[in-house]
Amino acid sequence: MTALAYRTRIEKLSALLAEEGLDAFFATSPITMGYLRGYHESGHERFLTLAISPRGHVRLICPALSESQARRVGIDDVVTWRDGENPLAHLERLASDWNLKSGILAVDDEMPAQMLLKMQATLPAALFKPGQPVVSRLMRNKDADELALLRKAGKIADDAFDAVLPRIRPGMTERELDQQLQDEMRRFGGRPAFCIIAAGAASAEPHHLSDDTVIESSHVVVMDFGCSVEGGYMSDITRTVCVGKATDEAKKVYDIVYRSQASGRAAIKSGVAPQEVDRAARKVIEDAGYGEFFVHRTGHGIGMRGHEEPFIIEGNEEPLEPGQSFSVEPGIYLPGRFGVRIENIVAATQDGHESMNREPSPTLIEV
Amino acid sequence: MTALAYRTRIEKLSALLAEEGLDAFFATSPITMGYLRGYHESGHERFLTLAISPRGHVRLICPALSESQARRVGIDDVVTWRDGENPLAHLERLASDWNLKSGILAVDDEMPAQMLLKMQATLPAALFKPGQPVVSRLMRNKDADELALLRKAGKIADDAFDAVLPRIRPGMTERELDQQLQDEMRRFGGRPAFCIIAAGAASAEPHHLSDDTVIESSHVVVMDFGCSVEGGYMSDITRTVCVGKATDEAKKVYDIVYRSQASGRAAIKSGVAPQEVDRAARKVIEDAGYGEFFVHRTGHGIGMRGHEEPFIIEGNEEPLEPGQSFSVEPGIYLPGRFGVRIENIVAATQDGHESMNREPSPTLIEV
Repeated sequence: MTALAYRTRIEKLSALLAEEGLDAFFATSPITMGYLRGYHESGHERFLTLAISPRGHVRLICPALSESQARRVGIDDVVTWRDGENPLAHLERLASDWNLKSGILAVDDEMPAQMLLKMQATLPAALFKPGQPVVSRLMRNKDADELALLRKAGKIADDAFDAVLPRIRPGMTERELDQQLQDEMRRFGGRPAFCIIAAGAASAEPHHLSDDTVIESSHVVVMDFGCSVEGGYMSDITRTVCVGKATDEAKKVYDIVYRSQASGRAAIKSGVAPQEVDRAARKVIEDAGYGEFFVHRTGHGIGMRGHEEPFIIEGNEEPLEPGQSFSVEPGIYLPGRFGVRIENIVAATQDGHESMNREPSPTLIEV
Repeated sequence: MTALAYRTRIEKLSALLAEEGLDAFFATSPITMGYLRGYHESGHERFLTLAISPRGHVRLICPALSESQARRVGIDDVVTWRDGENPLAHLERLASDWNLKSGILAVDDEMPAQMLLKMQATLPAALFKPGQPVVSRLMRNKDADELALLRKAGKIADDAFDAVLPRIRPGMTERELDQQLQDEMRRFGGRPAFCIIAAGAASAEPHHLSDDTVIESSHVVVMDFGCSVEGGYMSDITRTVCVGKATDEAKKVYDIVYRSQASGRAAIKSGVAPQEVDRAARKVIEDAGYGEFFVHRTGHGIGMRGHEEPFIIEGNEEPLEPGQSFSVEPGIYLPGRFGVRIENIVAATQDGHESMNREPSPTLIEV
C-alpha cells in the first residue's frame, strides 16, 4: 500500500465521521490500524489507540516501545507513555485538543473491554458508540489490489486441499489432517489462519475444534480452513468428503448443500440485498426438508478480518456493491450423526460474482 | 482438567464475586471460559458469554452452533440463539432471573467493545466494571498441573532455540529464521504462538515484527518466541546472539542485561513485591548508565495468556505467592543501532524461584 492509499482511506473515513456526526474514531486493533494507516502493532494489555478526527487529524497514543514502528510508517503525531506512567493523561489531552469531552466517540469492534471502560471513566460526559458500521463502509468494498490478495489467499487454500485430498485415510486423527493442511498452506506461501477438521459425529458441529478423534471408514469429514497472505488478507474454504463408501443419505445431504450453495451464488450481483442470497441458499435446504438443520447464516464478509461485513443473513438489506467479498457456506448438521458444509469465497461484480476458490465437487467425494 | 477442578474454580470465583460485591461476572474470551469451565469457544463477532453469579450459578448464552460443545463439557444451563434472532433477549432474561438490572457487573478484559456497548445499552442501570482483577486472583496462582504444562512449553522453546542456533548465518532473512523457530517448536510438540526476530537496528525495537531484513555479519539478533501446549499454556523466551564478531560495546551491553536478569531473578521469592524484582533488575542497568534505554517493565505473568498478572513493574506491591509464573526480561535498546533482551519464565517458590527455561549464556554468543 502506498502512502497515497492510506491518505485516501483516512480522508474517506474523516468524511464519513463528519457525515455521521461523530467527533472521533478510535482504532485499536492491528487490523483497523493496519487498514487505515499501515500500522499493525497491538497494544495487547497496554493502552494503544489510533485516533482519527472528522477533520482528518490522526494521533497515535502508544507505549514507548511501539513508537519507532509508528514513525517508520510515517505517523507524525505520536504521543507515548512508558510502563508505570498513566496513558490516560494522553487521552485527556487529546480530548482537550480535539474538543471531545462531551463528544460522540466511535470505537472499533475489537477494542478490549478493559480499554473501553478506562476511556469511559476518563471521559464520563462523552458518548461511546460502535465504530465498525462506519469503518466497514470503507473496508467492505475491496479495491483491485485487495481482490488480488484475496484471490491469492484463495488459491493457496485450494492448492492445499488438492494436495491433502489423496492422503486422507482411516486411522489418521483430525489433528494430523489439520496439521497437514496447515503445512501445505505454509508450503504454498500462506500463513495458516485457522483449520477445523470435524470427522464423523463431530462434522455435525459447525465450530468443532480438531482433536484426537480417529478418522474411520464411512466418516463424513468437514474441512474448514484458511490462511492469510501479505497485508493480512484471508481465505476461508470448506470442503466435505467421505472416507470410504458414503451412505445414500450422506450423498443426498451433500447434493442438497451443493445445490444450496450454487443457488445462493446464482443470486449474487451488484444491487442485490445479502438477505436475498441467504434466502436463495436457504430455500433449497428448506424445500428438501432440512431447514431446521441449517443453523447459521449463509455467509460473512472477508478481507483482513475473517468475519466482517457484509453478513449474508436475513435482515441485511444493504445492496451488494462490486468488490464486496464474502463467503457462501450453507450447511446441514444432523446432531450426533454427520454434517455437510460447502464454502467458497466470492466477490460481487456488476452482473454476478467471481469465485476466489475453485468449484466444489458436485458430488460427495469418496476418498 | 477434571470436572472437580472446574467446580472448584467456579466456587472460588463465586466467593470472590460475593466478597467484592459484584453481582455477576461475564466471561467472553476462550481463555477465561476455558480456564473456568473447559469451554474454549469464541463467539467472534457473535454474542457469546459465560455468566457466573456470586451464588455459583453458571449460564452460557451462545449461538446455536456452539451449543453441542457446551453440552459436551457439561454446562447445563445453556440458552442459544440463531443467526437472525436477538441474543440480547437472553441477556435481559438473565438480568431478570439473577436480579442484575441495577447490579454491578464485571466483564473480562478481552470482551470486545461492540459486545460491551450492547450490554450497556441493554442494561442501562447496571454498572460495568473490569472483572480481570477478580479472575486474575485465581488465574495467577498456578497449581501443580499448570506448572507442569508451563515447564513443558518452556522446554520446547529451549529445544527449538538449541536446534536453530547452529544454523543462524549471514544471508538469512528475519522471516526465514522466524519460520525455522516455529517449525522446530512444532516438531517438538508445541503450537507456535508468536515469534519476533529482530536483526541489526531492528533489534533496538522491542516489538519489531519479523520481516525480510537480511541478517548480516556483525548484526545483533534478538529472538523472542514461544508456543502453547495442552490447555493453551504458554512459553515465552528471549535470547540475543551476535552473527560473527561482536563489538566490545555489544558484549558490554549484553553483560549488563545478563546481570540485570540475574539480579531481578535473585530478588524473587514468596512475599516479595513484584516492584522489588523490577527495581533489582533496573538498578543494574541504571548503575551502568543505560537506564533511559530500558524502556519497558521487567516482566509479565504468563499462563493461558501470554501476558497476565502479576506484572513485574514499579507500583505493583502485591506480594508474590508460590506458583505465580512470570517473565523476567530486562533489555537495553539503543535506537538505530542495536538492542539486547534476555528473558526466562520463572515461577515463584517459597524461598526463590524455579526457571521454566534453561539458563541464558552468561556471555554474548557469536554464531
